[in-house]
Amino acid sequence: MTTTTATPTGPHVDHYPSRVEPEPSITPRRDPVAYPDTTGSLPHPLDTAEVERFDRDGYLVLEGLFGEDEAQAYLDELTRLSDRDDVSADPRTILEPEDDEVRSVFEVHAVSERFDALLRDSRLVDAARQLLGGSVYLHQSRVNLKPALRGKEFFWHSDFETWHVEDGMPRMRALSCSIALTENNEFNGPLMVVPGSHRWYVACVGKTPERHYEQSLRRQEYGVPDHESLRRLVERGGIDAPKGRAGSVVVFDCNMMHASGVNLSPYPRSTVFVVYNSVENALVAPFGVDEPRPTYIASREAAPVT
Amino acid sequence: MTTTTATPTGPHVDHYPSRVEPEPSITPRRDPVAYPDTTGSLPHPLDTAEVERFDRDGYLVLEGLFGEDEAQAYLDELTRLSDRDDVSADPRTILEPEDDEVRSVFEVHAVSERFDALLRDSRLVDAARQLLGGSVYLHQSRVNLKPALRGKEFFWHSDFETWHVEDGMPRMRALSCSIALTENNEFNGPLMVVPGSHRWYVACVGKTPERHYEQSLRRQEYGVPDHESLRRLVERGGIDAPKGRAGSVVVFDCNMMHASGVNLSPYPRSTVFVVYNSVENALVAPFGVDEPRPTYIASREAAPVT
Repeated sequence: MTTTTATPTGPHVDHYPSRVEPEPSITPRRDPVAYPDTTGSLPHPLDTAEVERFDRDGYLVLEGLFGEDEAQAYLDELTRLSDRDDVSADPRTILEPEDDEVRSVFEVHAVSERFDALLRDSRLVDAARQLLGGSVYLHQSRVNLKPALRGKEFFWHSDFETWHVEDGMPRMRALSCSIALTENNEFNGPLMVVPGSHRWYVACVGKTPERHYEQSLRRQEYGVPDHESLRRLVERGGIDAPKGRAGSVVVFDCNMMHASGVNLSPYPRSTVFVVYNSVENALVAPFGVDEPRPTYIASREAAPVT
Repeated sequence: MTTTTATPTGPHVDHYPSRVEPEPSITPRRDPVAYPDTTGSLPHPLDTAEVERFDRDGYLVLEGLFGEDEAQAYLDELTRLSDRDDVSADPRTILEPEDDEVRSVFEVHAVSERFDALLRDSRLVDAARQLLGGSVYLHQSRVNLKPALRGKEFFWHSDFETWHVEDGMPRMRALSCSIALTENNEFNGPLMVVPGSHRWYVACVGKTPERHYEQSLRRQEYGVPDHESLRRLVERGGIDAPKGRAGSVVVFDCNMMHASGVNLSPYPRSTVFVVYNSVENALVAPFGVDEPRPTYIASREAAPVT
């Protein structure tokens, strides 16, 4: 399963081996970023310049895609969720290691009707369809709370590397939307990206232990890129941390190298995070572990969003 | 020793009790910020606007006070120091908990002649004399290395609170200079300040254990301000993170609430940090512990810089 091949022959060929070799490596991406519309009938809410920017940089900021009143309504819903005892006790909920406050709720579209409606909103889905060149499904969704004056940092990583190795996502044809429910500023641990890094694949070292996800959502140990590869990517593209008011959305490619810092502001920072994957890129058996992660982390049903 | 009094009667009266009461409190500062020149003969390298800004905001950025070539020479000296086995083994050196890399070297003016010369440079000392209204001495000095792609964050704190409780600094008549040996930018964990916070004293809770400093330089547990006080200070003054090229200096009041984040850039971040205290504010017995911290952390000899 970890054999590379020059001619892609099917979804079970591993086009992006990682956690296999003893040394890290950095190689060019083998898939498009912005996919063409082969149907000729896809919605195209994004203009050509936006599509080109996404293709080149790997991300796009849609300032004010949602109104501040909408963001506030979703924030209220998030507060209600995080106060619910059944949500805290749900296996789909990740708690802060120190004090068991809610940090994330996975598969939030199944937990909350309001969030389900948000993640099927055409403002998001049509952009995803346009960029991925066809129908998409919800690969993952979650809400993230970064409590005021703490909240852990997330080290640099490519989501695709993990989704490929631990979930079996075969190719790079997925994107994430980070929907700000609170303002993103320099001090509250915003998303940081390395522009252009999505065009390179950093293979990591270390064999993944089974059921690794139970720890990895709290602390990262596998799928962590090496410092030399990171330095090379930052030397090419620098670092950007898109700021914006509540309701803004950052759309970024599945292989974008990204991170976020600690929230040192005295206000919580909340975001909704959703991954749209092309229905033509549905999951197969994981490329690096025997047992795939739970479906609330990586959906194995490629039911198109309608 | 922890009695407050309305009329200051001497250095052993505790004008700023902390870690005494069961609840935190926030009270106005009882000392000037920028002290007047009662001698009429002090140097005045700073103009009136700069002095007023320091007085109001609690800090001042002296962009390019040192040349980039000077900063590079000091950076080279720092690299030499951190490579020396005797420096790593020195009790004045603090190592990263994870891998024992050098994080800080205290009393660096006693360890290195070059750094001694830097910290006695008139560009720094004259500004300190002007702001503190007279002769000053070196209360503390250190070099800080924030390694690339890690390096711990420092939570919000007032240095004065610790210097008062653990070292016996009686009044607020000291300032710090943070000299950038590498560029400070948004991504490498720069100093963050709460403008105007120096005008308020946040008394913390929790009795300080003896020899607490052996752990506190690695991890903070005491002298940590409460979240409600921090929120009030940030609501008044916001947060600022002065950026600048190597050679720039941030001068900030001893009671300034400050913090710094993780270094998520792939480049190390290095600074020299020096505290000038007024010779009229020499240390007395600590206000919160029996045994004062070692003199390499807090000098007990108030020998004026000449």
